[in-house]
Amino acid sequence: MDPDLSSLDALLDEEDADGYLVDDTSHNSTQKYLSGFEAHDPFVTLYTPEETVLLVSALEYGRAKKQSRADEVRRVAEYDYRDLAAEYGPAEAKARVHASFLDDYGTSSVLTPERFPLGPADGLRDRDVSVTPDHSDRVTEIRAAKTDEEIAHVRAAQEANEASMRAAEDLIAAADVEDGILVHDGEPLTSERVKEEIEVTLLRHGCGLDDTIVACGADAADPHDQGSGPLRADEAIIIDIFPRSKSTGYHADMTRTFLKGEPSAEIREWFDLTHEALAAALDAVEPGVTGEEVHDAVCDIYEGAGHDTLRANPTAETGFIHSTGHGVGLDVHELPRLAPTGGELKPGHVITVEPGLYDPSVGGVRIEDIAVVTEDGYENLTSYPVELTV
Amino acid sequence: MDPDLSSLDALLDEEDADGYLVDDTSHNSTQKYLSGFEAHDPFVTLYTPEETVLLVSALEYGRAKKQSRADEVRRVAEYDYRDLAAEYGPAEAKARVHASFLDDYGTSSVLTPERFPLGPADGLRDRDVSVTPDHSDRVTEIRAAKTDEEIAHVRAAQEANEASMRAAEDLIAAADVEDGILVHDGEPLTSERVKEEIEVTLLRHGCGLDDTIVACGADAADPHDQGSGPLRADEAIIIDIFPRSKSTGYHADMTRTFLKGEPSAEIREWFDLTHEALAAALDAVEPGVTGEEVHDAVCDIYEGAGHDTLRANPTAETGFIHSTGHGVGLDVHELPRLAPTGGELKPGHVITVEPGLYDPSVGGVRIEDIAVVTEDGYENLTSYPVELTV
Repeated sequence: MDPDLSSLDALLDEEDADGYLVDDTSHNSTQKYLSGFEAHDPFVTLYTPEETVLLVSALEYGRAKKQSRADEVRRVAEYDYRDLAAEYGPAEAKARVHASFLDDYGTSSVLTPERFPLGPADGLRDRDVSVTPDHSDRVTEIRAAKTDEEIAHVRAAQEANEASMRAAEDLIAAADVEDGILVHDGEPLTSERVKEEIEVTLLRHGCGLDDTIVACGADAADPHDQGSGPLRADEAIIIDIFPRSKSTGYHADMTRTFLKGEPSAEIREWFDLTHEALAAALDAVEPGVTGEEVHDAVCDIYEGAGHDTLRANPTAETGFIHSTGHGVGLDVHELPRLAPTGGELKPGHVITVEPGLYDPSVGGVRIEDIAVVTEDGYENLTSYPVELTV
Repeated sequence: MDPDLSSLDALLDEEDADGYLVDDTSHNSTQKYLSGFEAHDPFVTLYTPEETVLLVSALEYGRAKKQSRADEVRRVAEYDYRDLAAEYGPAEAKARVHASFLDDYGTSSVLTPERFPLGPADGLRDRDVSVTPDHSDRVTEIRAAKTDEEIAHVRAAQEANEASMRAAEDLIAAADVEDGILVHDGEPLTSERVKEEIEVTLLRHGCGLDDTIVACGADAADPHDQGSGPLRADEAIIIDIFPRSKSTGYHADMTRTFLKGEPSAEIREWFDLTHEALAAALDAVEPGVTGEEVHDAVCDIYEGAGHDTLRANPTAETGFIHSTGHGVGLDVHELPRLAPTGGELKPGHVITVEPGLYDPSVGGVRIEDIAVVTEDGYENLTSYPVELTV
């Protein structure tokens, strides 16, 4: 994929900077996006309006030449890294190598990601390179608007996601109930067992995931508790799955809440209200609407029904205690924000919409779809049904 | 686990700094180690000799109080983040919140990891906080020496690793050969299929891994090529597996090279020489020996047999073209280095020893064990056999 980086060129021009510099592993999605290269150890990408150049270790050189989208790949050995490290230590050696590398490309001022590493930045500044973190987060903004190819990658990850949600729901549906505990194959059906089934299903569909949430009862009242132990009947079980495609690196994200047995009136009311909030939020999605307005649609529904929200009470610990959603792409959490600070939605933004209610004395309910903003509204990329009882 | 941070206290004292500050997700292992907390979004840990304090979002607050090793957990909402972000934007709001937070703990000068994020560092410096990256990498040095509990975590991950290597070897051993291609269940046996089997086996054993290497023939000549496509008979297949335990976060790491069919005389010689290099390197391991000396033991063997090494020729593209090994813990690559820049080994260091030879016209051979440095030598944590032909 060749990203459209014209707005980065414009930013470099405005800020009078020669290039944009990244020094990170490809776990940093801006690094992966600009370099088109995956590596576990940090490497350097210099982007200028004329060319993209990588600086890598000998170990990564062959692969980088083959796989990256760079116009040129250089090796640290060409800049005598080893001798410099022996003489000055690794930090100063790296600074000297990076400064020489930038000098080779006529670059004496760079913008960087907000979270560019401090040590290397100081090393370059000590050598009179101007290094300025880009607070506007321009590359993450560029990354937020997906090409059709990227949307297809998310769609493929979401298909794997739905297969794994189906495997989880089937496991819960097939369970027996003994003394209020779900039982499968004569053993208590645990959160860990359901996660394993989800993650194996994802692997069989070419996706990986390390942190599935399968959280029951009070565990589910903490939105980021991953859940543990036996699952119980008559309690809400939140399942939140956000796989990454191993081949493309793109994510999907979806949450469902299931209940085996009989829901209390309160859980049923929470579920229906959350389903209503999901619909209201999606109804609000179109280009030009802000993430804040979509978030407000959810808060309006919850507050109207007497629930607390972070909008009404910034230190609330029960009620709707997170934002409405986020962008999804190479990162599972990226721009745009569907939150009080969320800016305008644009066509190609891939977003989650995930209202939820939480209270340790009741449990948690969350429903999350993933959708893409289109020219005149949105397309929901989720086809998984929304049903509480299984 | 309560890590022994006395040498960090000594560093703070030497450098006249009030505290050590980390601003990152728990994917940063120094963050995970100091905070004892796992979260996908960045959070702040302030370590001082008196206490460890976390600064987290509302979303992580409940879980952080329960799970982290911090003495105290604070929320950004307590510092009016939302109002500040509305007035000044997120970067400046964050800087103001962090400065107020540090001020609450009487901290006006901090050391940070070398790769602390630049934007937040500049934000603090603008508010007269002294922020100095610790080039000595003291916390990664502390992390390198493992407690018995941490060694047990690595050992457990290595048991899962050996089960997954067994699954891979069994799949290759059971394959038929048709027209020089391995065939399983009537389909070509691919690198992707073997990786899937490895990763499913790891999941069933409580470990995760996203980037297994199963590389055959010329693919294996590039040490970090992950391999793809049908596996071939009579060619060396490098399998490198480095799982992370989902429960503890600790890694293991092991490589074997397998060949189905008849090895050429050259591959056989490479394999035996590499096995010899592994033994020579392990023989050299004991406290007080440097990583460089262990690396030299491997280079001596290879150079003695007429192979190129990076020691003899820093731009070599064939021969022994990587370092001998690295520490393993919360990171799969961490201190110490078994490389030209490697310092003294100490008891509790968990290290890989992984000699290998590479040439696209021959293929690649690598054998990697994982071991722990003991008071008087080492204990090999690997029990998987070393056999080329399957």
